[in-house]
Amino acid sequence: MFKASLIKKLSKKELVPKNYLEKKLKEGKIVIPLNRKREVENITAIGEGLRIKINTNIGTSPEKKGYKDEIEKLKIAISLGTDTIMDLSTGGNLRNIRKEIIKYSSVPVGTVPIYEIAKNAEDKRGSFDKFTLDDILEVITEQAKDGVDFFTIHAGILKNTLDIIKENKRVGGIVSRGGAILARWMYINNKENPLYENFDKILSIAKEYNIVISLGDALRPGAVADSTDNLQMQELKVLSELVRVCLKEGVQVMVEGPGHIKLDEIGTNILLAKKLCRGVPFYVLGPLPTDIACGYDHITSAIGGAIAGLNGADFLCVVTPAEHLRHPSIEDIKDGIMASKIAAHSVDILRFPEEWQKDLNLSLYRRKRDWSNIFKLSMNKNKAESYRKSLKTHTTDICTMCGKFCSLKILDSCDLYK
Amino acid sequence: MFKASLIKKLSKKELVPKNYLEKKLKEGKIVIPLNRKREVENITAIGEGLRIKINTNIGTSPEKKGYKDEIEKLKIAISLGTDTIMDLSTGGNLRNIRKEIIKYSSVPVGTVPIYEIAKNAEDKRGSFDKFTLDDILEVITEQAKDGVDFFTIHAGILKNTLDIIKENKRVGGIVSRGGAILARWMYINNKENPLYENFDKILSIAKEYNIVISLGDALRPGAVADSTDNLQMQELKVLSELVRVCLKEGVQVMVEGPGHIKLDEIGTNILLAKKLCRGVPFYVLGPLPTDIACGYDHITSAIGGAIAGLNGADFLCVVTPAEHLRHPSIEDIKDGIMASKIAAHSVDILRFPEEWQKDLNLSLYRRKRDWSNIFKLSMNKNKAESYRKSLKTHTTDICTMCGKFCSLKILDSCDLYK
Repeated sequence: MFKASLIKKLSKKELVPKNYLEKKLKEGKIVIPLNRKREVENITAIGEGLRIKINTNIGTSPEKKGYKDEIEKLKIAISLGTDTIMDLSTGGNLRNIRKEIIKYSSVPVGTVPIYEIAKNAEDKRGSFDKFTLDDILEVITEQAKDGVDFFTIHAGILKNTLDIIKENKRVGGIVSRGGAILARWMYINNKENPLYENFDKILSIAKEYNIVISLGDALRPGAVADSTDNLQMQELKVLSELVRVCLKEGVQVMVEGPGHIKLDEIGTNILLAKKLCRGVPFYVLGPLPTDIACGYDHITSAIGGAIAGLNGADFLCVVTPAEHLRHPSIEDIKDGIMASKIAAHSVDILRFPEEWQKDLNLSLYRRKRDWSNIFKLSMNKNKAESYRKSLKTHTTDICTMCGKFCSLKILDSCDLYK
Repeated sequence: MFKASLIKKLSKKELVPKNYLEKKLKEGKIVIPLNRKREVENITAIGEGLRIKINTNIGTSPEKKGYKDEIEKLKIAISLGTDTIMDLSTGGNLRNIRKEIIKYSSVPVGTVPIYEIAKNAEDKRGSFDKFTLDDILEVITEQAKDGVDFFTIHAGILKNTLDIIKENKRVGGIVSRGGAILARWMYINNKENPLYENFDKILSIAKEYNIVISLGDALRPGAVADSTDNLQMQELKVLSELVRVCLKEGVQVMVEGPGHIKLDEIGTNILLAKKLCRGVPFYVLGPLPTDIACGYDHITSAIGGAIAGLNGADFLCVVTPAEHLRHPSIEDIKDGIMASKIAAHSVDILRFPEEWQKDLNLSLYRRKRDWSNIFKLSMNKNKAESYRKSLKTHTTDICTMCGKFCSLKILDSCDLYK
């Protein structure tokens, strides 16, 4: 499926043996998002036994159509170490934006094709309900040709789900845009989810271009009150069946997960998804263990992401402080990425001596108050350095917190640590 | 121990029956920090079966002696919902600062008396090693008279520990200021820890004023490499013995905990501390599951705090983004408090229907895009509102993220949620 040279390169980057990668790729427990048409400078592998990866969402919206900021976000996200980028644009000329993003992205790029399908229908026919199978396949083929490396496909929300939604009176409703678009399409057109019905056709495009299918969770809980509910579980069952189809067809696949989840249900969610979906990579948005931290959901998400990672989630989607409130600014993107990186790294150090060593080295420098090396090893050198540079004492070895009462300096003075 | 009217008031605030409070107070599993000399407007109870409480550290340093900012921090911390305040001042006129803080604080105030003891010795005798038992008792008595509600006492670090420190070559060393001061005092004076040797005298002052003793962890790990190490466990054993003494003497007591702890060892740390220390309240600083997130340790701490809380920690100490870098600014304090509140609330909603209801209500308003009520119920109204006010669309019901592709609005349009 992949060239030996690529496996060799990835094995080095991922700190695992080549045959481990090959075995897990074959089993579907690891995926490599890499469109056959693309050259990706920073390739990445996602899945079992690897470092936890993070994805950053960027893209325009109907209210923010300019894409210059999005390219800026892309560059910053890559410089801060995002493993992948998703272009979720819904405003402006989507194809041009996508091409720009793919051009500038040294990491794999994902999309949610239903956004462009819906927007085209609205632009051409006045309503986003008016798309056909041809429209779907046209957009997906075009995006594949453009070099997209992974697609989120919301094929797990079915027509019969609509009745359950009506009965269940879920608190948060449907909070997935793709899910809501498809729910409305099914409702208005009284037909089955076209992504589900034509899943084979989508797979053959994905197979041709070696695109990873990321099975979207259209029914992810959008409120902790809906955590692990009937609708979420119904969809997970459908996704597990679609995973089986992907693996049978030799198409790389991962599964997307929640969402707003109670703190003590996160572990169970990961376990269930992994068990039901044959151990394919699990990609979570959050999870967020509370709904009321508006403006701070990057922190809520770091809590959920770390627990998810510890329990086996493979891929974390960055949540920014702007979540639930606005289109994120560049600063929001930075804060969100750092929060996800902390969650991922807190788990990675338990598994990889090379990651553990980073903390060990920084702490050894910290004991010596060797600030320049502390900054070098900090997850975000600039932030750490700017904090210290704000001090009058920044030319000495101490900081303004403890001054001469610095515990480390006191200990140095009595040779307990020489 | 406490008046019936106070228990009644607290039972209402803490959402538990009066007899539950009384029983747990008697067992030592709940404490109420409230100096007999003080009137505290917002009294609080800390411990088993209660909402998780948070403490905010404020105070001057040798490099930041002005206390105006500290009073400002105090007011902001209280307005953001801190349950207690600790005055950790080490610069300027400590008594005046403490009196100001106590005057303005509507919540319980804690201190670490060894700071003032050491500073006095340095001011009067040129070295912070030159304090005597009289100096110790004088400061503790004065602080008790001033109305301090809880004292951190580092009585668990013993003289024989110094040899272990020398042998073990711990990565992070001693990162507790109180611990380092006492380690140096023992090393220079070649005597046992005076707080340990005279623990009975300290207890009798605490008893007289009804001050809670918070047993400080002088040997808490300051690097994940030291997580749950020999030194930490040695000290915990001493602390467990001191807990027994406090309970026997009828002095309220809690135990302080780490520190930098590996993500998968946090649960064990809480379990051990609770088991060894007879279930008295456990007060954690962090824990921080990675060392390298300099400038973002409020997030690292939120991850550790949520997991600690889920496993039974009762009291979280706020860690700010300035941790390890500088004396915190007012903004740092705000960010730190919010991070701790998110961690605490994520656990509280699992236990208290009243807390759960907050998330439920906000999510119901979110589904309706009822922004003014969303803000009212947000953990930090101002931050959430300022995010939204930055938008052109803030007078409509949508936000700039999805615009007309708002999933909730789409669903409304097809009567699935009517």
